[in-house]
Amino acid sequence: MYLEKINGPEDIKKLSVEQLQPLADEVRTALINRLSKIGGHHGPNLGVVELTVALHYVFDSPKDKIVFDVSHQCYPHKILTGRKRAYTDEEYFSEVTGYTNPLESEHDFFIVGHTSTSVSLALGLAKGRDATGGNENIIAFIGDGSLSGGETLEALDFAGEYDKNLIIIVNDNDQSIAENHGGMYKTLKALRESNGEAENNIFKAFGLDYVYLDDGHNIKALVELLSRVKDTKRPIVVHIHTIKGKGLKYAEENREFWHAGGPFNIEDGSPKYKRENGDNIIYNSLKGLLEKDKTAVILNAATPSGLGFVGAERDKLEKEGRFVDVGIAEENAVAMASGIAKNGGRAVFGTFAPFFQRTYDQMSHDLCLNNSPATMLVLYPGVFGMNSNTHTAMCDIQMFAHIPNFVYLEPTTEEEYTAMFNFATTQTKNPIGLRITADLKSTGEKDETDYSDYNKNKVIQKGEKIAIFALHTLVDIALETAQKYKNKTGKEITVITPRFLTGLDTDLLENLKKDHELIITLEDGLVEGGYGQRISAFYGTDKIKTVNLGITKHFHTDFKPLELLAKCDISADGIIKIIEENL
Amino acid sequence: MYLEKINGPEDIKKLSVEQLQPLADEVRTALINRLSKIGGHHGPNLGVVELTVALHYVFDSPKDKIVFDVSHQCYPHKILTGRKRAYTDEEYFSEVTGYTNPLESEHDFFIVGHTSTSVSLALGLAKGRDATGGNENIIAFIGDGSLSGGETLEALDFAGEYDKNLIIIVNDNDQSIAENHGGMYKTLKALRESNGEAENNIFKAFGLDYVYLDDGHNIKALVELLSRVKDTKRPIVVHIHTIKGKGLKYAEENREFWHAGGPFNIEDGSPKYKRENGDNIIYNSLKGLLEKDKTAVILNAATPSGLGFVGAERDKLEKEGRFVDVGIAEENAVAMASGIAKNGGRAVFGTFAPFFQRTYDQMSHDLCLNNSPATMLVLYPGVFGMNSNTHTAMCDIQMFAHIPNFVYLEPTTEEEYTAMFNFATTQTKNPIGLRITADLKSTGEKDETDYSDYNKNKVIQKGEKIAIFALHTLVDIALETAQKYKNKTGKEITVITPRFLTGLDTDLLENLKKDHELIITLEDGLVEGGYGQRISAFYGTDKIKTVNLGITKHFHTDFKPLELLAKCDISADGIIKIIEENL
Repeated sequence: MYLEKINGPEDIKKLSVEQLQPLADEVRTALINRLSKIGGHHGPNLGVVELTVALHYVFDSPKDKIVFDVSHQCYPHKILTGRKRAYTDEEYFSEVTGYTNPLESEHDFFIVGHTSTSVSLALGLAKGRDATGGNENIIAFIGDGSLSGGETLEALDFAGEYDKNLIIIVNDNDQSIAENHGGMYKTLKALRESNGEAENNIFKAFGLDYVYLDDGHNIKALVELLSRVKDTKRPIVVHIHTIKGKGLKYAEENREFWHAGGPFNIEDGSPKYKRENGDNIIYNSLKGLLEKDKTAVILNAATPSGLGFVGAERDKLEKEGRFVDVGIAEENAVAMASGIAKNGGRAVFGTFAPFFQRTYDQMSHDLCLNNSPATMLVLYPGVFGMNSNTHTAMCDIQMFAHIPNFVYLEPTTEEEYTAMFNFATTQTKNPIGLRITADLKSTGEKDETDYSDYNKNKVIQKGEKIAIFALHTLVDIALETAQKYKNKTGKEITVITPRFLTGLDTDLLENLKKDHELIITLEDGLVEGGYGQRISAFYGTDKIKTVNLGITKHFHTDFKPLELLAKCDISADGIIKIIEENL
Repeated sequence: MYLEKINGPEDIKKLSVEQLQPLADEVRTALINRLSKIGGHHGPNLGVVELTVALHYVFDSPKDKIVFDVSHQCYPHKILTGRKRAYTDEEYFSEVTGYTNPLESEHDFFIVGHTSTSVSLALGLAKGRDATGGNENIIAFIGDGSLSGGETLEALDFAGEYDKNLIIIVNDNDQSIAENHGGMYKTLKALRESNGEAENNIFKAFGLDYVYLDDGHNIKALVELLSRVKDTKRPIVVHIHTIKGKGLKYAEENREFWHAGGPFNIEDGSPKYKRENGDNIIYNSLKGLLEKDKTAVILNAATPSGLGFVGAERDKLEKEGRFVDVGIAEENAVAMASGIAKNGGRAVFGTFAPFFQRTYDQMSHDLCLNNSPATMLVLYPGVFGMNSNTHTAMCDIQMFAHIPNFVYLEPTTEEEYTAMFNFATTQTKNPIGLRITADLKSTGEKDETDYSDYNKNKVIQKGEKIAIFALHTLVDIALETAQKYKNKTGKEITVITPRFLTGLDTDLLENLKKDHELIITLEDGLVEGGYGQRISAFYGTDKIKTVNLGITKHFHTDFKPLELLAKCDISADGIIKIIEENL
């Protein structure tokens, strides 16, 4: 047992090179222990065990600084830098997050969860080192999938002009989350197949030095190569071929499925809990559009299964050019959608809300300034979306709702989603976004709303004196509040959901003045700059009172949605208290 | 005279190849006529005269579609597509904008003003063509400087996998706005010097086909080459070497100065109006920081002279690595700034507000989530910034003010700027932005404010009943309003400027409740989701009235700031009317 003696990189250095593979095997066992019990990023971590052991053998972390990209492959690094019990002992599993985190260890430098940041951040550390007279090695550790993001490519270009120490480790397992997309992956393949000798080397084309290693699981070779590039005086790319999922046969074979997921039985990879099928509303709508509109093009950015497209059907649609995975390249996806719409095609781009953050300028300048009628599916923003500060998306309304020409719709039921999607993908008047939050339930009743009549809110129930405006995920809390209040006072509360987030229903708001005294807005993202403040502004000169509730301004993490909401007064009791204080 | 007979591309096709150079000469004369009289983008347009003539000779616009990037080099295109009198005849100069504009001509497809969009937008047009069964050529026309932007690089990667017609014309004049920066420019140089034969071709590395032409002013060669690639069945890069400023000796010689500018005397290039030196506040602050803090690193993104750094001083500081031009690559700049700050350096990044729009995710995830104490200089947002819809930046508060950990300061005087800059660049607590709007005048009095006491507003004058919160550029209108109101009623109005845009001065706001009845907020960007609505939300349950004034939600263009403001009720008369309606 080597791992039990490893409490930091200094302990690894006491081993001989021959002892590193047994250590790596123990690291892999620890990894599988945790992954099989609680899930996580399986493939990316299994693939970099040997490489991470070699890195910590050769370099002197934390003086030498490693920046992981996306950092979802940092589990072996955590195991080797004092956090092994979070992998070996179930009692301590909660001690680590799934990403690097400076609050956990001095060996971590950034909180990261969005791809394609490592080369830029490492360049920054390098420039900081230069400015302060340091001499440490700065290492960016990036997977091939993350190379396609604009931030990486900008940084590779800059690195090609930079003239001091920087080591860019490209961990090439020939796979993004799904398969890679983009021309560079053809030339990366040529490099792998030529032992790094092929022409038209993308890294050299950016002006960078370059070395290649084909067997990224040969620790001796890794140690030799890394020792050779250590203390390099100018930037160098170390291109290393690894096998995603290494060590678990089923993970090596089905790399997309094993990118990340839940607990599993080690012997055969069978899931411990049956994965929920989830709802297929989005998939069904996209599939329906492809069937009925021959000009439809569906775009995603490296998360095709997020839209429900997998296997042979996806392959076929990709070959036909109707389902397009742009890779990790959200900027390109939004701009392309604008172009498709301008040339008569029906473009729909969908990705997860945190990654839409990469597209503000494309949304504003490329899409909305040109008023291209493409459809954007913003998946799972708000407090019921992902709950790590690396992946929360609490500001989609702040980012997008003010952009001229944009129409941002939020459905609250499956039928509304369907009606809004059909509206968005048959009109030619505006770019339209659909804010898709958790748990769109079917009511069984078709939604016949005419969404071309912009900014009409939906009155769910009509009361008096008090009205609550609730975004979709908070409608239940609003109704619960209303019920409790009615039980207490016998009086009905009006409950409204806005449906349109890019404009106010001024007729309705005017009408409320007649018999309402207090308007409460509930939103599942930040309150500052959000939807509710627009309503407060509307009533600025009236005697009607307004209270805007939403998430406080902070990078909240690892929260339970209902608990965080309650802390922000969004619970039936919290809201009733506010009502009592203000009536 | 050929040009007089050219009313569209069909007329060019009537000429022989031999007649194209005389036509090009006339186009250049028309260009120089307009440029010398009212200024514009001199160098970029002079450099593409022959290329544009050849393009319209070979291709069939508007069926074949050309997407220009940034489109600041589209003047010859406009001359050749029915808009020549806007270049030849002063009376019609105002008929065209400086960028492509579908409202002007069917030969323009997008309104664009931000760089690095053409390949993405063209890919979109191409996919739209495929979806609708078209067969036209789609052409992206991009300068070498724009290649470094993440959106371009993402799109080149995608294009390398795309398998239908797309022609990417790289107009390589070996110059961005200033000199190019980034490793790819070394390999582009090698391509120019080897007649396109050098190894490590960045375009081929993205999987693209490639051809090169060294003399981009030889129309015959251009026509031959373009005819050869016309109707290509798969994407191809046509790399063409041109001379920026071609035809005006002084412009060819000093390419940065002649990138863009004002009217000049044709014979020697001397400016018709002396360029204002402008204020040197920003330059002085940066220079001072570099002198007193050896860890300081100043970053810019292809607009170094926007920060006041030119000539030999800039060259020296760049060699020392203390003044860093990342090229057109704002994402990389913000992420690098975060890294520099994390490793003990003092990073300041400054660029124009519209281009900060490209960095939302880096601002939020790379910088603020990591709470890296770097300083961001956001130059000239708001209605007094640039006034073309391609370059306005009316939403910087919407974009950035809600981001946790970020502190966004707005100075109203030169001394405040200096004090805020000094505070920002000596603290280690937060990422700080400075919102720098027009015309920071000196008061002669040192600003001794302690800006570490966050969110304290500045009360410019104390009155009663009415308070106006005005952003810097609107303080004068607020004071004028107060004076007029006093003249009329004898009563003083309170005038406040927020200084902090990322939080409210709740003590002050509480205090105002005592003797104020109406609060009016004035902002120089969009009112929706802006600063003022935060104040309305604060007073939601109080009897104090609030009115939020700001720019209406629209991509306003070609406006006069005071006129647009007045239309939005922001004028002394407009505000007094609102006061009278509400008191």
